[in-house]
Amino acid sequence: MSTALLTDHYELTMLAAALRDGTADRPCVFEVFARRLPEGRRYGVVAGTGRLLDAIRDFRFGEAELDVLERTGVVDDRTLAWLADYEFTGEVDGYPEGELYFPGSPVLSVRASFGVGVVLETLALSILNHDSAIASAAARMVGAANGRRMIEMGSRRTHEEAAVAAARAAYLAGFTATSNLEAGRRHGIPTAGTCAHAFTLLHDSEEEAFRSQVEALGADTTLLVDTYDITNGIELAVRAAGPGLGAVRIDSGDLGVLARQAREQLDSLGAKNTRIVVSGDLDEYSIAALRAEPVDSYGVGTSLVTGSGAPTAGMVYKLVEVDGRPVAKRSSHKESRGGRKGALRKHKDTGTSLEEVVFPFDHQPDLDEHDRLLQVPLLRGGQPAGEVATLAQSRERLRAALVSVPWEGLKLSRGEPAIPTTFL
Amino acid sequence: MSTALLTDHYELTMLAAALRDGTADRPCVFEVFARRLPEGRRYGVVAGTGRLLDAIRDFRFGEAELDVLERTGVVDDRTLAWLADYEFTGEVDGYPEGELYFPGSPVLSVRASFGVGVVLETLALSILNHDSAIASAAARMVGAANGRRMIEMGSRRTHEEAAVAAARAAYLAGFTATSNLEAGRRHGIPTAGTCAHAFTLLHDSEEEAFRSQVEALGADTTLLVDTYDITNGIELAVRAAGPGLGAVRIDSGDLGVLARQAREQLDSLGAKNTRIVVSGDLDEYSIAALRAEPVDSYGVGTSLVTGSGAPTAGMVYKLVEVDGRPVAKRSSHKESRGGRKGALRKHKDTGTSLEEVVFPFDHQPDLDEHDRLLQVPLLRGGQPAGEVATLAQSRERLRAALVSVPWEGLKLSRGEPAIPTTFL
Repeated sequence: MSTALLTDHYELTMLAAALRDGTADRPCVFEVFARRLPEGRRYGVVAGTGRLLDAIRDFRFGEAELDVLERTGVVDDRTLAWLADYEFTGEVDGYPEGELYFPGSPVLSVRASFGVGVVLETLALSILNHDSAIASAAARMVGAANGRRMIEMGSRRTHEEAAVAAARAAYLAGFTATSNLEAGRRHGIPTAGTCAHAFTLLHDSEEEAFRSQVEALGADTTLLVDTYDITNGIELAVRAAGPGLGAVRIDSGDLGVLARQAREQLDSLGAKNTRIVVSGDLDEYSIAALRAEPVDSYGVGTSLVTGSGAPTAGMVYKLVEVDGRPVAKRSSHKESRGGRKGALRKHKDTGTSLEEVVFPFDHQPDLDEHDRLLQVPLLRGGQPAGEVATLAQSRERLRAALVSVPWEGLKLSRGEPAIPTTFL
Repeated sequence: MSTALLTDHYELTMLAAALRDGTADRPCVFEVFARRLPEGRRYGVVAGTGRLLDAIRDFRFGEAELDVLERTGVVDDRTLAWLADYEFTGEVDGYPEGELYFPGSPVLSVRASFGVGVVLETLALSILNHDSAIASAAARMVGAANGRRMIEMGSRRTHEEAAVAAARAAYLAGFTATSNLEAGRRHGIPTAGTCAHAFTLLHDSEEEAFRSQVEALGADTTLLVDTYDITNGIELAVRAAGPGLGAVRIDSGDLGVLARQAREQLDSLGAKNTRIVVSGDLDEYSIAALRAEPVDSYGVGTSLVTGSGAPTAGMVYKLVEVDGRPVAKRSSHKESRGGRKGALRKHKDTGTSLEEVVFPFDHQPDLDEHDRLLQVPLLRGGQPAGEVATLAQSRERLRAALVSVPWEGLKLSRGEPAIPTTFL
């Protein structure tokens, strides 16, 4: 499917004017960056790069796209003809998916003629802003869960396609599985599920519901025990599945107290290996608050898919260089730094990160052994510049990057970015 | 394209167990409602119904969907065979798109066998929760704008497909146009655009950029005047386009002060009909704060597509009736009311709404002349129950519904729902 119309009207009218006056061919550099992190956040996680590369490949104007542009008169015939031949032919460098970013980090650099580059603005930002917002929130939750299993189950709380991307971003950030079947199909993410209250209510008794589920799915299934009375539910659950019951889920109430009671009861019933899954409006703070409780898995929905208070990453796509000279908006607000940039991260001997250094691309500082350049080539002549990172590789990259964050930066409390950004 | 996998894993495993034990055929009623409105909100706007009806039609398991379910072992062969024949054959009633809703309003009732109805949970909620959240925020912005033009331009701040749905929801709520070209194509919404700073920066001077834009798009275009210096920018803009210049856009700074200065300057240059468009992190509060200023149009992005603090409507899809008897979760938290329900809205003689009354479907109260039943038939035997409302009709419905809201309910300040909900 073409992604070409997932674009703002003004990209194409700017293109039309630039084609007419000859500036559309000027070599340009566009840069994606966030002026700041969401309030109080210590780091951001770059996500969506893999999806963006696919979307750029599919950014082609076929008959259906051209017809509507012609019929609605958005652009003139010259522009229609140009778009009919469109194919991204430029160079893209960027922070790889799973890398951390900070205010001003040049997470993506697009080098192309103005016409070729300007039309990607909306699409690039849609993907990076959404996916990075979700991954950034998810990473905090994974940290709060401290190694326990995390199941993403927020599809019902966000747009049906955003749900698939959110599941992908959550997995990138370390979630164990998703409830979303399309995310399983499209991105190879493990899917998982428990059971809804509807299934218990459908049956003549809770016991019948449990027996049916165990017969269909095996004793290793997860039984939802809070439809009527949790204590009774747990007793019936172990009776139905035996002490080999996989897990019980508790979806409401004081989850800490209930988890403790459930653990004691399960142990007393001999179901010592039965796991406890909790869910119900969890976010990074409530997950952290449950750290001392006997919880084995968290099911997280709403707060994950809405970025836990920061549903968009606020990245912008700015023209920073034309014909080799830096350009920047100069009025009093929202100033930008002109010129193509590179970035490196400095580290202590211990590997702890110290500082994000953003430099003019042509003036790269000498690197010491603990400095790491952050941009990698993504597209060359419009084609993938080598192997595209798999989701598993990006997941591992983030895991490693988070290890390098100073401990203050991993705190959930609001504060400054974990490391400062220095602009050379 | 099939929507069948935009579904949670557990819907299908519940189905598998219910097919095995024979309960999958039990006649059921599922209800969609919101337990509460987002904090401080006075009303909600139902949106997404039209998209949902299309998505239900496309909820079919083809070879691609069945293959992945078989390969990953999500369900057994019996269930695969059942899904291969799946087609929604039930009855759906609901609040029409553009209707207001309040806590507990039964915005959708799905009547079908358990198996046929349960699998739609995730898809129905994804669409209604997203679109209703956006439309609810958008309606407040449109109210704050008090009749001035509103352009939706938030695509870059949300998932690329959510952007298309957000544009639709904003238009439903009274926005004038969207920047999103795909929303124009798919939903027939007028598209509009101005110009980005990149276009000015691309050129050797602001004046050249303005002249180019006017030559390509005509004097009626909108020139972005805040790249360097607004006063100088306006002077150059009128010089380039003449006093017939369509509009200027200001995207940063103290928009109220700048709009006043711009109006004076435009008038002094003879451009008395040149409109002023403002943009830049606007939400309903900043739009309202500009009410006394000479602003002609607002461009709204981030706050619109993120629901202005409430990115999801929090609706749930609950099984309320099995085999004609009411069912409900009974543990201490998140209680639900069992049984199929209807709803009516009571009004004063003046037409002002007074109360939302939710009643057991079989005990509909006598209606007086100012009572209005809220649910309408949407699907019968899986097929549209008459003409599906057009987006224009839903837009008009909302406009009329908002006229009936008590004036306190239209205030932007946080407070209780505009009318109480009474459960009979």
